Amino acid sequence: MIIAVIGNSSCSPEEAKLAESVGELLAQRGATVICGGLGGVMEAACRGAKSQGGLTVGILPGQDSSAANPWVDIPVVTGIGEARNIAVVKSARAVIAVGGSYGTLSEIAYALKGNIPVIGLNTWSLSRDGQDDDSIIKAGSAEDAVDKAVSLAKRHRSHEIASLRSQ
Amino acid sequence: MIIAVIGNSSCSPEEAKLAESVGELLAQRGATVICGGLGGVMEAACRGAKSQGGLTVGILPGQDSSAANPWVDIPVVTGIGEARNIAVVKSARAVIAVGGSYGTLSEIAYALKGNIPVIGLNTWSLSRDGQDDDSIIKAGSAEDAVDKAVSLAKRHRSHEIASLRSQ
Amino acid sequence: MIIAVIGNSSCSPEEAKLAESVGELLAQRGATVICGGLGGVMEAACRGAKSQGGLTVGILPGQDSSAANPWVDIPVVTGIGEARNIAVVKSARAVIAVGGSYGTLSEIAYALKGNIPVIGLNTWSLSRDGQDDDSIIKAGSAEDAVDKAVSLAKRHRSHEIASLRSQ
Amino acid sequence: MIIAVIGNSSCSPEEAKLAESVGELLAQRGATVICGGLGGVMEAACRGAKSQGGLTVGILPGQDSSAANPWVDIPVVTGIGEARNIAVVKSARAVIAVGGSYGTLSEIAYALKGNIPVIGLNTWSLSRDGQDDDSIIKAGSAEDAVDKAVSLAKRHRSHEIASLRSQ
Repeated sequence: MIIAVIGNSSCSPEEAKLAESVGELLAQRGATVICGGLGGVMEAACRGAKSQGGLTVGILPGQDSSAANPWVDIPVVTGIGEARNIAVVKSARAVIAVGGSYGTLSEIAYALKGNIPVIGLNTWSLSRDGQDDDSIIKAGSAEDAVDKAVSLAKRHRSHEIASLRSQ
Repeated sequence: MIIAVIGNSSCSPEEAKLAESVGELLAQRGATVICGGLGGVMEAACRGAKSQGGLTVGILPGQDSSAANPWVDIPVVTGIGEARNIAVVKSARAVIAVGGSYGTLSEIAYALKGNIPVIGLNTWSLSRDGQDDDSIIKAGSAEDAVDKAVSLAKRHRSHEIASLRSQ
Repeated sequence: MIIAVIGNSSCSPEEAKLAESVGELLAQRGATVICGGLGGVMEAACRGAKSQGGLTVGILPGQDSSAANPWVDIPVVTGIGEARNIAVVKSARAVIAVGGSYGTLSEIAYALKGNIPVIGLNTWSLSRDGQDDDSIIKAGSAEDAVDKAVSLAKRHRSHEIASLRSQ
Repeated sequence: MIIAVIGNSSCSPEEAKLAESVGELLAQRGATVICGGLGGVMEAACRGAKSQGGLTVGILPGQDSSAANPWVDIPVVTGIGEARNIAVVKSARAVIAVGGSYGTLSEIAYALKGNIPVIGLNTWSLSRDGQDDDSIIKAGSAEDAVDKAVSLAKRHRSHEIASLRSQ
């Protein structure tokens, strides 16, 4: 089960701590962590996952694997810049957003468009034409976020299998 | 001057009317309309622009130019799916969003990340970690949206030139 | 009718002259020239097309339209690096290669994979597992290349229409 | 060390056997196999790698991880179609081509443009403007291909480190 962790390449110490906990807990639950491969939230999540023996994948925007943070096991060098954001979320069964700016928002948008569940920790809230959009599922802690992500990732998978069977 | 019009590939009659007016007014101001090339808001904006003799560019997601709506002059066939959203907004000096769902949200996010002004007509509102993000400039009508887009597109350009000169 | 001209961003004076003639002749035949938007062969083809009042489209790899050569009418800013090569050829009904290195080879490959005719002027030759692959149609002059491209582009289109009709 | 294996999604039994051997030998040498994630040569290489306990990464063109062959450990879902070819080779320190058609040719082109060594087994030969281009290193067997790829991948890395040190 692959779960994405998304957020800024530079982040506050509190966000780094949250992201590291998320990475640790995902690894403990047997999930592979996928992210954008760079610093900040991405690095913290990878560091957390590696501390628990997890596997980490970094989908890099640039031309060179040397841009990957040191905790990325599998650096995927795309060369397609920020368009790589779509690959980060589409590869995952669920997405956990920790803080984040506009790059993270683009990833949230692509995930929601693809019916991939998004769990948010201190991240964006959306409303459209005056009405709240509650698609981003709020979590109160790293534990809560990982619980929700893992549970939704499993359901997401079952749903897919069910829909395949009914074809 | 290239200005993007973004929104859903299927839309309400009201949104279509708004987008068509936006296209007309942009063409009257001499702007080239760029969009995702498909139906709904994209088609309405192109139809409006063509009714005023404007030029229209459609950045298509798929493999074939035949998916372009009939009002696209220059169909660009990218073959990169929804990742083409980034090219729609990065090619523009300003972006006008008419309604829109998650695909539009990804375009808004990419535009804001690239410091490209976004003007919104009945579209998304954003807040981050409990604080409103007012980066999407609200417009009350097609005229208002086009006025703001053209004015910001010119300023955006001047700013670029200024920053190039100071290097 | 959109026709692509592909080749190096730095080129010999002979290649520039060839590419400029190709651009002139394409514009005289009413074709829109699409290319990668940068210097060398791309710039020469655009300059030739503009000298005859043609329309030019540049599919740029980077983040900024300022990288476009001065003869590009419609700079499309993709932000996806060399992956933009696929959009250059997929947007065209035929492709003319003038010289070219590995970037050009990737474009030739994508065009042939997509059944888009490729006409070559002093460009790559291919063989596979010891057998010549004659898919790149050799041309002896700019005139010959443009004649072949325009003729194949029309046939390509008719074929498409025919195959649509038979569905 | 990540090494790419590229080739057709449908292939002859001989090519499948070659690709499977390549995958086995790469895994024995401790290399991670990256590929386009689909059938044919890609599937055979992954199957070979998994038979020796190796790790496999599939860079998928479409929207869904279910398109991955059953021997892919890490399916990366890009959603960018054939533009994902660039990510397959740029993520690797060396590339082994087994047979292959135009998609494979685009990957070879991107690898050579990025100075990533390409080893060929019954694959494309190139000449440019009448002169042979010997950039694709011929191999006579799966063993020979893997020997050359691993050796060049190490040199490639040392070279990078050397060039980083000299900056």
